[in-house]
Amino acid sequence: MKNRDNILNEAKQWIIEAGELIKTEMNKPYKIDTKRDRKDLVTEIDQKTEQFFVDQISDKYPDHKILGEEGMGEEVHSLDGTVWIIDPIDGTMNFVHQQRFFAISVGIYHNGIGEIGLIYDVMNDTMYEGIRGEGAYKNGQQLEPIDPNKTLSDALVGLNNFWAIPNRRLNEKKIHDLVRKVKGTRSYGSAALEFAYIAEGIIDAYITMRLQPWDIAAGKIIVDEVGGITTRVDGSSLDMLTGNTVICSNKAIHESLLTFIQEKD
Amino acid sequence: MKNRDNILNEAKQWIIEAGELIKTEMNKPYKIDTKRDRKDLVTEIDQKTEQFFVDQISDKYPDHKILGEEGMGEEVHSLDGTVWIIDPIDGTMNFVHQQRFFAISVGIYHNGIGEIGLIYDVMNDTMYEGIRGEGAYKNGQQLEPIDPNKTLSDALVGLNNFWAIPNRRLNEKKIHDLVRKVKGTRSYGSAALEFAYIAEGIIDAYITMRLQPWDIAAGKIIVDEVGGITTRVDGSSLDMLTGNTVICSNKAIHESLLTFIQEKD
Repeated sequence: MKNRDNILNEAKQWIIEAGELIKTEMNKPYKIDTKRDRKDLVTEIDQKTEQFFVDQISDKYPDHKILGEEGMGEEVHSLDGTVWIIDPIDGTMNFVHQQRFFAISVGIYHNGIGEIGLIYDVMNDTMYEGIRGEGAYKNGQQLEPIDPNKTLSDALVGLNNFWAIPNRRLNEKKIHDLVRKVKGTRSYGSAALEFAYIAEGIIDAYITMRLQPWDIAAGKIIVDEVGGITTRVDGSSLDMLTGNTVICSNKAIHESLLTFIQEKD
Repeated sequence: MKNRDNILNEAKQWIIEAGELIKTEMNKPYKIDTKRDRKDLVTEIDQKTEQFFVDQISDKYPDHKILGEEGMGEEVHSLDGTVWIIDPIDGTMNFVHQQRFFAISVGIYHNGIGEIGLIYDVMNDTMYEGIRGEGAYKNGQQLEPIDPNKTLSDALVGLNNFWAIPNRRLNEKKIHDLVRKVKGTRSYGSAALEFAYIAEGIIDAYITMRLQPWDIAAGKIIVDEVGGITTRVDGSSLDMLTGNTVICSNKAIHESLLTFIQEKD
């Protein structure tokens, strides 16, 4: 990709500005009377933030495409050229209920290859970045490769209860076995942050059944750069144009996970 | 309790010193060859930290009793007089795997009544305090009462997968219904912090099946001061001398939770 360094620096700058924008909106003295109002308000902040990215990117890189959660860019049907895949607020429920544990996620792909992944934990002012072939960083400090030898029985696994109770997507009995096998499970409510935590070694795996491209585009690149692997739960490659099931971990745990996860037809 | 203000200030001071001690130990260049070594090392830090509290308290308040996770105080068989109930590192697995999301928890009871609850998120340098009848605070800022009208369907619930899969303690089918009913579930891996998060309104309920007095002693006091309620899962009072099942939330959610939780014989 041409100008990757410039694009990286601009993207980081825009993300930090977008974070400020979100914090400003959060602190406005607004009046929420009903859940409906609250939902509208969040959608409004989400859209405003995405529109900010669209404006910056179209101005500077009119030939780049933008695939965003809120659909403020044009429709994207292929990964040809340079595509920005953006979630302005990943972890919306946390944003609403907790005013923390949410992130801005930006993945930049060129002809289908992930070049730059950026996840910004807004309230902690923490920037995770992955640059293809150049490593992953947390606030500018390079992250170590994740432990390739860690096995499932020593792993902390990001797994929401939703996939451990009877559900339409997975054989839950195998998930019960998995929960009993692992060291422990955690659930933080933001896919982007769970990827970032894997890159940091804070958790060792993440399993979920429905993520959109903007939930995973940045995370996959960051995790790749510390030696992790991210696929669909059947082991096949992620598709950045459609919904995905996801497992993410080091290679040893990934192999074990495949045996514990059986999709229902 | 006599001298409550003095005791509060001393306890906070000691907790902050204990936090420094833990951070110093964490940063020592030690060599861990095996899981066994790592376990020993953590136990050592845990014990050192508890011993620090025991030394301070016995020196200043020789008639106070100390009930700690590591058993560095004398054995405590009653809650008569003043009893400090201490977990030097709550969230040990997080401490080991994540080097964050753990807390020092100190509850001070007088003749069985919780007077002072302190939870210190060491890595975030965040102090939660509850003082009976005087409110709860986060870093000195008074916390608002939690929303008394929030219901289960709008609640984020702290619930580990372990209690949602078939287990010896609970009818898991009712827990599945609960998971489907609530807004979402989270799992952070530190009981003390989950209490603190309820007091802050970050989550709305917490359910777990096995906690020791040092896991809950401080949290209960803090949550009491924002209008929350903490009981065993059958609705009976907690016992600060033995293991407990726990539900914690506002009163409306508490009442609903009782209908979703059925203990096995």
